[in-house]
Amino acid sequence: MASIGPDSMPERIAAYRARIETVLDGYLPPLERVPERLHAALRYSALGTGKRLRPILVYATGEALGVPLERLDAPAAAVELIHAYSLVHDDLPAMDNDDLRRGRPTCHRAFDEGTAILAGDALQVLAFRILAAEATRDGEIPAYTRMIHLLAEASGTDGMAGGQALDLAAVGQQLTVEALENIHRRKTGALIRASVLMAAMVASETDTRRLARLDRFAQDLGLAFQIQDDILDVEGDAATLGKATGADRAKDKPTYPSIAGMTAAKRRCRDLHAHAVAALADFGPGAEHLRWLADFVIERNS
Amino acid sequence: MASIGPDSMPERIAAYRARIETVLDGYLPPLERVPERLHAALRYSALGTGKRLRPILVYATGEALGVPLERLDAPAAAVELIHAYSLVHDDLPAMDNDDLRRGRPTCHRAFDEGTAILAGDALQVLAFRILAAEATRDGEIPAYTRMIHLLAEASGTDGMAGGQALDLAAVGQQLTVEALENIHRRKTGALIRASVLMAAMVASETDTRRLARLDRFAQDLGLAFQIQDDILDVEGDAATLGKATGADRAKDKPTYPSIAGMTAAKRRCRDLHAHAVAALADFGPGAEHLRWLADFVIERNS
Repeated sequence: MASIGPDSMPERIAAYRARIETVLDGYLPPLERVPERLHAALRYSALGTGKRLRPILVYATGEALGVPLERLDAPAAAVELIHAYSLVHDDLPAMDNDDLRRGRPTCHRAFDEGTAILAGDALQVLAFRILAAEATRDGEIPAYTRMIHLLAEASGTDGMAGGQALDLAAVGQQLTVEALENIHRRKTGALIRASVLMAAMVASETDTRRLARLDRFAQDLGLAFQIQDDILDVEGDAATLGKATGADRAKDKPTYPSIAGMTAAKRRCRDLHAHAVAALADFGPGAEHLRWLADFVIERNS
Repeated sequence: MASIGPDSMPERIAAYRARIETVLDGYLPPLERVPERLHAALRYSALGTGKRLRPILVYATGEALGVPLERLDAPAAAVELIHAYSLVHDDLPAMDNDDLRRGRPTCHRAFDEGTAILAGDALQVLAFRILAAEATRDGEIPAYTRMIHLLAEASGTDGMAGGQALDLAAVGQQLTVEALENIHRRKTGALIRASVLMAAMVASETDTRRLARLDRFAQDLGLAFQIQDDILDVEGDAATLGKATGADRAKDKPTYPSIAGMTAAKRRCRDLHAHAVAALADFGPGAEHLRWLADFVIERNS
């Protein structure tokens, strides 16, 4: 693969973002298919907005390992659909009770609560259907079956759903930094880690040292991402973020800055970034996308 | 497989029911694992009660095709977990708003709404994790990967979740019998069909005529089951059912008896039963369990 200069990086990331939009559009059921309203809620929740960090990580990791983009479409779409479902359910009144998401009304506000619950359920199962379709094609690659297991593990009570339960239980509690990092690693980290490791599975990467480094990179990046989220909830701009700031404080949710202070939060974020980038040392110029993404995660303002 | 006399049938079904309880208990995360409350909600929702029709169908179909029971545990558990998740979400205030299920408080009543939403999400993904674990074992059988696709299809907007959306939208509406049957086929039928077809996949049944007959059996049985449910909502006994009767009427939900009348509902149920049993004509004494189950579905009072 040709090395891509740093100047072209934002364009490359924009190309990944455009690609996942097209790919998701193709995988999501059409608006005119029954039940139309449910399908509208799925498309509303999964299309048109979002940073697309997870599918971008799938594409960037895959390219670092020399995989053609078209073999990465299924895991990229699957992980983004899992993420989209988690946002729809987390926003519900019984959970975080948010009205605004990515600058638009949340799914249950734009539709209704029952539809939002079903839309989340259907987005989750669509993710597994997409991977299973890939896994059962002629000339099936066992990698796609292993991805289903990895993504299920990352989404369940040991990962994302468990993290959200701990997050809800933490409201009004005093947590240690370690306990908060554990929540962050499950709630956000597990899916970011799965994005990187699914791409490695497509690449049939079997060098355990390289796999361990990619895993290290992904875990540090995921935690840094969530700490930066905590920081932006205090210092960010609501218009840029597309959601209210101060939401965590208003809900009495422990965050990294509220527990350890803003200075420590920013230091932890920088340290994680440095570790993440160091883990990529062996991956050469092909991993420039991943390094650029690591910078983006701690420099982003939305 | 030795033929089993009709006298021993209830005992055989009871043995399947005991087996799925043990299997589910083993697959569900232990109570003492973090997050404990979420795991308690999963176990509360999936263990201890329920007719277990779907896993029983997996076992009975598998035995009719000569498959050892231990190879049927994963699909039996997976389909029951999908069913359990759908009940937890359907019972939520924003959906059917039910307080009682199988004679006990519904999950959101016993815990809280946020926990019930997450428990449903986690039960769904656990189903796919179980099948994926089986599919990625040494000496992997592609059948388990195909099952993931079938179960995802049966659970999503073309199946169960789509049926629930249509069911919610039908409240207060005048439906034709055909439209109601379409809802029933998606909401209940798709998962019952998947139970039978997953067992056929474990058996590596490839005779397309036999597969088509099993499919016919499963589809007729699924529709008969839901029409009998509609009948029991009118004629059943709340204590035996473990939930309130008249709930559909109270919610102004169209049912087979409300659209076509009780006599037509019972006739349709009997006709479907006859077709279902006729579809099994070629399967010999090994299919006695399935015939018994077909009788059970239209004769049950709970």
